[in-house]
Amino acid sequence: MGTNGVASKYGTVSRVADIPTPALLVVNSALERNLDTMAKVLPGTRLRPHVKAHKSTDLARRQRDHGHLGFTVATIREAEGLHAAGLGHDLLLANEVLDARRLGALVQNGARVTLAVDSIETIEAAVSGGVQEVLIDVNIGLPRCGCRPDEAGELAALATLKGLQVRGVMGYEGHLMVEQDSDERREAFAGSMRDLAHAHELVGGEIVSSGGTGTYAHHIEHGVASEVQAGSYALMDSAYAKLGLPFEQSLWLLSTVISVSAQGWAVANCGLKSHGMDHGDPSLAGHQVWFLSDEHAVIGNDATTENGAENVKVGSRVSFMPAHVDPTVTLHEQLWLVEGTADDDRVLERWPVDLRNW
Amino acid sequence: MGTNGVASKYGTVSRVADIPTPALLVVNSALERNLDTMAKVLPGTRLRPHVKAHKSTDLARRQRDHGHLGFTVATIREAEGLHAAGLGHDLLLANEVLDARRLGALVQNGARVTLAVDSIETIEAAVSGGVQEVLIDVNIGLPRCGCRPDEAGELAALATLKGLQVRGVMGYEGHLMVEQDSDERREAFAGSMRDLAHAHELVGGEIVSSGGTGTYAHHIEHGVASEVQAGSYALMDSAYAKLGLPFEQSLWLLSTVISVSAQGWAVANCGLKSHGMDHGDPSLAGHQVWFLSDEHAVIGNDATTENGAENVKVGSRVSFMPAHVDPTVTLHEQLWLVEGTADDDRVLERWPVDLRNW
Repeated sequence: MGTNGVASKYGTVSRVADIPTPALLVVNSALERNLDTMAKVLPGTRLRPHVKAHKSTDLARRQRDHGHLGFTVATIREAEGLHAAGLGHDLLLANEVLDARRLGALVQNGARVTLAVDSIETIEAAVSGGVQEVLIDVNIGLPRCGCRPDEAGELAALATLKGLQVRGVMGYEGHLMVEQDSDERREAFAGSMRDLAHAHELVGGEIVSSGGTGTYAHHIEHGVASEVQAGSYALMDSAYAKLGLPFEQSLWLLSTVISVSAQGWAVANCGLKSHGMDHGDPSLAGHQVWFLSDEHAVIGNDATTENGAENVKVGSRVSFMPAHVDPTVTLHEQLWLVEGTADDDRVLERWPVDLRNW
Repeated sequence: MGTNGVASKYGTVSRVADIPTPALLVVNSALERNLDTMAKVLPGTRLRPHVKAHKSTDLARRQRDHGHLGFTVATIREAEGLHAAGLGHDLLLANEVLDARRLGALVQNGARVTLAVDSIETIEAAVSGGVQEVLIDVNIGLPRCGCRPDEAGELAALATLKGLQVRGVMGYEGHLMVEQDSDERREAFAGSMRDLAHAHELVGGEIVSSGGTGTYAHHIEHGVASEVQAGSYALMDSAYAKLGLPFEQSLWLLSTVISVSAQGWAVANCGLKSHGMDHGDPSLAGHQVWFLSDEHAVIGNDATTENGAENVKVGSRVSFMPAHVDPTVTLHEQLWLVEGTADDDRVLERWPVDLRNW
């Protein structure tokens, strides 16, 4: 693995210094520790990893090797890509669709696909598209998709009447995901779980799917969910880093300093097209991030203002911490799996972000 | 063109209703009016269209057909793609690079490539990479790349000494680009032009490259720049729409409503992975945009609160106006060129966003 370098359109890449920038690095040992940590507390099918966070079948395969056989997806393309990679054993599309024909084709082709539905129209789309299994998506507090908990039984009955297999319910408490822990948050979480349990009583089935990286520990305590849909835990970002979770940053945006001003700033070659910006700017240790343009990150570069930081030079390579993992990864063609120290590093693998687009 | 439909990985697509969502639409007639309007006031090489705004060689070809033979690019990949598409007649990479070997290979391969340099290191990178022509990049007020105006002559002399051809100067007044017009802004613009003219006096050469969609009209008045680097004018976005420019919105994000709540909101299937978010949320006529998740846009859906708006239903198709064109387009695999009305529309062409990645 990786000792002779990794093939790419840029030629063979053996060392981190050979990787053309901007580029997303994944530190192998940090990734493995994250996968181990999660697999210990949510083993096997207790975790249904959400691939929207990384959009890489290579990373999904690592999660499968940690014992998780089913996956959560957000798009039809993600389901298609996982099945093509041999990972279509049990896919949950945790979102509504109005045209399910490509999912029906996947089922015909041997994939197991379960689709979220929350309305008569989405049930009809599942039927006419050729999907056979569904979950009733229940709104448990986030103003987004999902029926009212007390409507879940009626929708399940309709789905059954139309010939669909109803495997259970799902509900996503996204409004509680990146909140600091507090009594209010725990109370809101308990309320969400009461709603989900109520819907499950009305619907039945073996699956109660919920949660994410920010709430996985509450789900272990609470015990309503049969499976948790976490995805960000593998790579992490600066928003989740604030929550004190037992996962470490394994994803970094490697860039090159292309310009330095004597007036106290420097410019790295990564910008709005390298970073998802909905959580704000990425971070760079020892430097303030001033602003980003399409292909530029302008950073403060006056060591007197930051304790212990060294100024960067033209040609320096610097690694930013992404602010939001999902929309950052989707901007990139590949993840570079790397290991080692600055003096002795190596490139292990190149993982295409092959689940992008729709 | 388009009468029998357009081939895609989703099958043949003839009508807008057949386009799988989320999808970027470009309205052909609006695009053509924008290209005409600009070509009239900045004809031929007076405009060097910046392809970073659209990243499509098909759209670049339209700009070439409007008389603009040279292009501005922000990445090496954009230069490579334009040359491969037969549009490498005169490419300006308006950014610094530390590894110019792929640009040197392009030059070997018959492309004309001019590279921005602003330091000894970037001049050395141009030489060792095999680039032969450069512009001196001058800082004219935006804290980003570019040397001080009074350093430009010295850098040009160094570049010449190293065997490079110095074609002139460039400077980007990005800090004035999306500002409303005012006396202060005009004064700042005049100051930027004084700096650029001063640098040009020190450097010489036939090119003074500057500007963008937000300042192109000032450049016509002012007359310092020999060419303007505008790109956003072709597709536009809600930030530029506020400036009262003579360009219209030709780019729309088509999405499908996948869920509707009786409590007053609806959910469209386009989110953080469809929209560049650095300028905030996209807009939807008649609805408030509440928030976006990875694959969701949650919108208000209570017609009593919005004058004249109709509520959307599950399955409705709605078109958002992007807040920032460049980082939105880069999230998409293709642009769908369309024409016609809601009752009689057609898909004319499918344009790959083939200049993505690096």
